[in-house]
Amino acid sequence: MTDLDATIDRLVRQIPDWPEPGVTFRDITPLLADAEALAAVVDGLVDLAEGFGPVDAVLGIEARGFIFGPAIALRIGAGFVPVRKPGKLPSASHSTSYDLEYGSASLHMHLDAIVSGSRVLVVDDILATGGTMAAATDLVTQAGGVVAGNLVLIEISELGGAERLAPTGCAALRTY
Amino acid sequence: MTDLDATIDRLVRQIPDWPEPGVTFRDITPLLADAEALAAVVDGLVDLAEGFGPVDAVLGIEARGFIFGPAIALRIGAGFVPVRKPGKLPSASHSTSYDLEYGSASLHMHLDAIVSGSRVLVVDDILATGGTMAAATDLVTQAGGVVAGNLVLIEISELGGAERLAPTGCAALRTY
Repeated sequence: MTDLDATIDRLVRQIPDWPEPGVTFRDITPLLADAEALAAVVDGLVDLAEGFGPVDAVLGIEARGFIFGPAIALRIGAGFVPVRKPGKLPSASHSTSYDLEYGSASLHMHLDAIVSGSRVLVVDDILATGGTMAAATDLVTQAGGVVAGNLVLIEISELGGAERLAPTGCAALRTY
Repeated sequence: MTDLDATIDRLVRQIPDWPEPGVTFRDITPLLADAEALAAVVDGLVDLAEGFGPVDAVLGIEARGFIFGPAIALRIGAGFVPVRKPGKLPSASHSTSYDLEYGSASLHMHLDAIVSGSRVLVVDDILATGGTMAAATDLVTQAGGVVAGNLVLIEISELGGAERLAPTGCAALRTY
């Protein structure tokens, strides 16, 4: 276990039975609030991002994917594309439906967000079943982009998200 | 008008009558997607942030405040605190109600998010009436923090947000 692993373990809080019974939520807010830890995890995520080769755009999934996505984009010289929940994007959009760990939903991305052929890195905070991130990769494909890879702070391995994202590959800073 | 002003004018798209008739929405997604422009506006926001003196925590308002908040926090060596909509935070939280440009809502922040006495910079993308940002400053005060200042990418001056935030001060990279 690295020092960074220990930092993540210490500052990511486990909330049992939230948002519903039987689910344990990983709350990253104590980690975000710690300036040194925040800088360390973003450094770690940037290192992983660089492993996916050239990236033109970082795609972040609303809302917690917005926290790391732009910070990573700035460091690797890419643009940032927000993927949003219904009713949030004002211009014509691609959309896709998906199943969540708890419930179902749809994601949206502006038609002009991605230049055809560009390489896109999909970023979120936590990989659970992979439904949300698979939906985001679907939006990239709809727009004619190429998924360079998927990147998360934390992977919950027993939920099988990495297998679901195997076609495009997913890197995690910490796996439980 | 500076080069940065011209970049913002070129890449922030005006959407008339959205999300409701009579409201013109400023869509920042084309600016975010442009790597060079994104880097330039974050540089500009960091310069403005430094004008508020020492800052311990940057507070970002869901969802678009999450885009710039962490990037600024990383650059000035602060932690990041997300202020969220109802039902999103898993631990005990402060909350406050406020009026929006279109509608009303409440904002929430974890009780342990801010250390009493710490200096907090409130960040969002656009300042309209100032209702959302005033609510965020209220959360900082509830938690025993000190509002170092408020910072936005764009201020819509005719809506009076700057006057509403006058007690704590608000800086904007571009004012319309």
